[in-house]
Amino acid sequence: MIFNINCCIIYDMSNLYSIRRSYMPSLPAIIASPFENICVKYGHSPTPSGDEKTIKKYFTQTFGQKVITFSVSQSKKKALKPLRTVVVLSGGQAPGGHNVIAGIYDALMKISPESKLYGALGGPDGLVRGEIKELDKNTIDSYRNTGGFDMIGSGRGKITTPEQFKAVEKLCKDNKINSIIIIGGDDSNTNAAHLAEYFMKNDDAGVVVVGCPKTIDGDLKNSSIETSFGFDTATKTYSELIGNIEKDALSAKKYWFFIRLMGRSASHVALECALQTHPNICLIGEEVKSKNETLQDLIDYVADVIKTRAQNGKNYGVCLIPEGIIEFIPEVGTLISELNTLLANSKNEIKSIKKVAELLSPESSKCFLSLPGDIQKSLLGERDPHGNVQVSKIKSEELIGNAVSAKLKKEGVKVSPVFNFFGYEGRSAYPTNFDASYCYCLGYNAVILALFRATGYMSTVQNLTSESENWKLGGVPIVSMFTVENRNGKPTPVIQKALVDLNGAPFKEFEKNRSLWANEDSYIIPGPIQYFGPKECCNSITKTLQLEQS
Amino acid sequence: MIFNINCCIIYDMSNLYSIRRSYMPSLPAIIASPFENICVKYGHSPTPSGDEKTIKKYFTQTFGQKVITFSVSQSKKKALKPLRTVVVLSGGQAPGGHNVIAGIYDALMKISPESKLYGALGGPDGLVRGEIKELDKNTIDSYRNTGGFDMIGSGRGKITTPEQFKAVEKLCKDNKINSIIIIGGDDSNTNAAHLAEYFMKNDDAGVVVVGCPKTIDGDLKNSSIETSFGFDTATKTYSELIGNIEKDALSAKKYWFFIRLMGRSASHVALECALQTHPNICLIGEEVKSKNETLQDLIDYVADVIKTRAQNGKNYGVCLIPEGIIEFIPEVGTLISELNTLLANSKNEIKSIKKVAELLSPESSKCFLSLPGDIQKSLLGERDPHGNVQVSKIKSEELIGNAVSAKLKKEGVKVSPVFNFFGYEGRSAYPTNFDASYCYCLGYNAVILALFRATGYMSTVQNLTSESENWKLGGVPIVSMFTVENRNGKPTPVIQKALVDLNGAPFKEFEKNRSLWANEDSYIIPGPIQYFGPKECCNSITKTLQLEQS
Repeated sequence: MIFNINCCIIYDMSNLYSIRRSYMPSLPAIIASPFENICVKYGHSPTPSGDEKTIKKYFTQTFGQKVITFSVSQSKKKALKPLRTVVVLSGGQAPGGHNVIAGIYDALMKISPESKLYGALGGPDGLVRGEIKELDKNTIDSYRNTGGFDMIGSGRGKITTPEQFKAVEKLCKDNKINSIIIIGGDDSNTNAAHLAEYFMKNDDAGVVVVGCPKTIDGDLKNSSIETSFGFDTATKTYSELIGNIEKDALSAKKYWFFIRLMGRSASHVALECALQTHPNICLIGEEVKSKNETLQDLIDYVADVIKTRAQNGKNYGVCLIPEGIIEFIPEVGTLISELNTLLANSKNEIKSIKKVAELLSPESSKCFLSLPGDIQKSLLGERDPHGNVQVSKIKSEELIGNAVSAKLKKEGVKVSPVFNFFGYEGRSAYPTNFDASYCYCLGYNAVILALFRATGYMSTVQNLTSESENWKLGGVPIVSMFTVENRNGKPTPVIQKALVDLNGAPFKEFEKNRSLWANEDSYIIPGPIQYFGPKECCNSITKTLQLEQS
Repeated sequence: MIFNINCCIIYDMSNLYSIRRSYMPSLPAIIASPFENICVKYGHSPTPSGDEKTIKKYFTQTFGQKVITFSVSQSKKKALKPLRTVVVLSGGQAPGGHNVIAGIYDALMKISPESKLYGALGGPDGLVRGEIKELDKNTIDSYRNTGGFDMIGSGRGKITTPEQFKAVEKLCKDNKINSIIIIGGDDSNTNAAHLAEYFMKNDDAGVVVVGCPKTIDGDLKNSSIETSFGFDTATKTYSELIGNIEKDALSAKKYWFFIRLMGRSASHVALECALQTHPNICLIGEEVKSKNETLQDLIDYVADVIKTRAQNGKNYGVCLIPEGIIEFIPEVGTLISELNTLLANSKNEIKSIKKVAELLSPESSKCFLSLPGDIQKSLLGERDPHGNVQVSKIKSEELIGNAVSAKLKKEGVKVSPVFNFFGYEGRSAYPTNFDASYCYCLGYNAVILALFRATGYMSTVQNLTSESENWKLGGVPIVSMFTVENRNGKPTPVIQKALVDLNGAPFKEFEKNRSLWANEDSYIIPGPIQYFGPKECCNSITKTLQLEQS
């Protein structure tokens, strides 16, 4: 079935939008060459880091695939058949999603004007429910280089049950779809691998499933994936604001800004923003965990920096806090996991702080009771769909900022804290020139993978620190990125999340400089993302990517 | 005395900073012409809106001055004497302050390389304490086109007592200063008028005092001042974020964003951002006051819009709330003023909600008790330096958003509110091309006023909707902008604040469209401020200015 949603009516548009619509990303030469001239080269077969046996059990068909690189040759191949593709946006917004779709569309039309592109409405659920929409030139053109996922919508649904797989298979049969491209993060691409495996096993028509690496959190990367898309734009948007606030702190000389940044499972966003803006303090969750620090340790550290600055006549500054910091603190992590179990098992809602404290282990009870009232309330408040504590609702910037202020008040230092959370402002921004180009290539390349029937692969664009004409297209088997984690008590293959590597170049660079940044005012003010003008202003890449690839 | 502060050490700089430093604002022809060719034309003598007698009592010397316009002629005048000027930044940061100083510096050096520019450190207090610093070419050049007030710092101090006036006079004598330029909002320019009057009465040397109109709030404007500087940059920075959030709301289709915007005394910032981004809801304080609406009225209005959207399958959206909304609600305004009196008169801190409620009038008591606990706490919390409730600390977005969610829950509509406050991110941003040019002209023109000994004038740059080569330079007597207000029980001349005019074109435009914006998704996504590229992307002016001047 093909449903249509009403496209939002555009009454007016911004000047930037009307100009950016016609921006053509800068691209590697392979994208200009005819598909008939593209050659595939198969490389090695990477070994997943997780237990092979467990992974093989789930992925009998797609285990052991080889990495792919594409190049251009002069050998003419036979004429190409049109592709019929459905694209799915999965999970939270990331700038550039529409450009992935534009790249897919342009590639499909180049293969043959008979090709068709459909969009699943509202994410994976749309695929299961058969809610898809044909995407035509007008639609694609009106979303080129824009942020958001509003062209077809996204969702957090998953395709896991046999009925759901069957439903997707039926959709493909009904609409003669021969390829599915899933744009998502680690979970969504894990799902893509299952779908690929399913079609390899069950489907005579041989639907190809390809993934594209999306997440502003930056935690979907490895030796094949240099960065996920959206990270560049989101961190630059946050860094614009952080830089402006640093400049304001330096001007007014009376406020301490505690800024929480989106990115729950890893601290890449906070680290990248710190490298871009040189704040006085930046907490890194992975370091806190590795050093087994307590909440009190963090409070003491922040208080020390503030006190020293105040003694030097600088009672102002900026402190960055990753959204997920709370979970990285081992004692709080344990508390949260005990609370999840406790509250999931109690049918009646337990709302009394005292009652909850009695039911926890002695350590967690102590930790719980040491927290301020509103944080305790957040922890006992609304659950997420899995019944878990909604860590993203915990205002860790207020928790830490207020505790530090209270501590320093006793020591005679008056702190004026201001609290910020930056998240939603960056998820749907107009993609930077980098993300616009990268995403277009990811989409175009996903079609090349589909054309070569590389199912279960993730689209890869490499050599990103070089000029875009030198970028390399290819694919990596999703299964090769798997580790095995316990999910609901069962060993389950999932894509390994990339946490901040404490021995990696970005963290080392931060570690080398942080005491200087703490004591001086060595702020960097990046300003807003530029789409035009001098190259160094509008085409730079993230510090993380620069440092990791250098 | 001349003090030196240590300039912040710049270890590194952003790419945008290194490019913007050498950006030359586009300017009217008069700025390129020699000072000897500039002619002054005196126009009419505007009548202040406030009681003449009261104003004349304070301003015997400067009352009745005429507006000034400058033009270029070929008549050669006598050689110019060097000026020795001190510049003061007063009040909160606004983007472009450094460019005002750069304009002043360049004009002074053009008059004569023997001219001197000093900066008062930390605002008016620096002037009183004699803490000034010479500003040389290197300093000026390293701050051109940057945001913030960190070159010399700012402050909220005032010059009011005879001793303070004397101290400023002594500073000028000691350093042979013959002109003072004060960059500030309505209060600071009122102060500038007093200083001008003082020097006219008391000083043989005849120090000239000139003001420049600064405030991101946009409430310092009138028939002579088309806009205050900083409003353009700040509203574009907020609109970038609001637009991104609108795009995110439209993509995820599950959140309602309640966004509080800086700007306490007037709702120009919220109105301008609404005109730039077309949110579903924007509250305007001046309208609330004029319609004598209650807090419950506002909650009902917002709830109605949300409910209607939810019924149409759009349970998401964006609601803008001006920071000062609370004070505009007549019943809350009365409550706050009663609380200010009550708490100022009670030596012991009254912290019990019940006790406070008993001491208020019946209406205010009812209003107070209807507020949520954390808002009551905010109202009784820390005072500002005048002993008043710190209205800016009241999270009106949470107050309204939570009340609306609670109301709609009872009616079966589940709202997922997300709260934001945008303020500090916009005060110190890199000035837009408009603000960079406008500020440079304001500063350059302030020096022309000083050269023509136009004391007690505010620098005016008019015809701002035209290309900058057509801008007109001149001056307006500050006293002519005065109204009379009761301050500490005494009729006092102050510059009239410009509130949102409910009959003005900007509000009318908003009013015409708001029900459409409420029901549809007619969001505009302006994107980040651009400094390069197509004119319409990097040189546009605010909707407020366009509509008011058209």
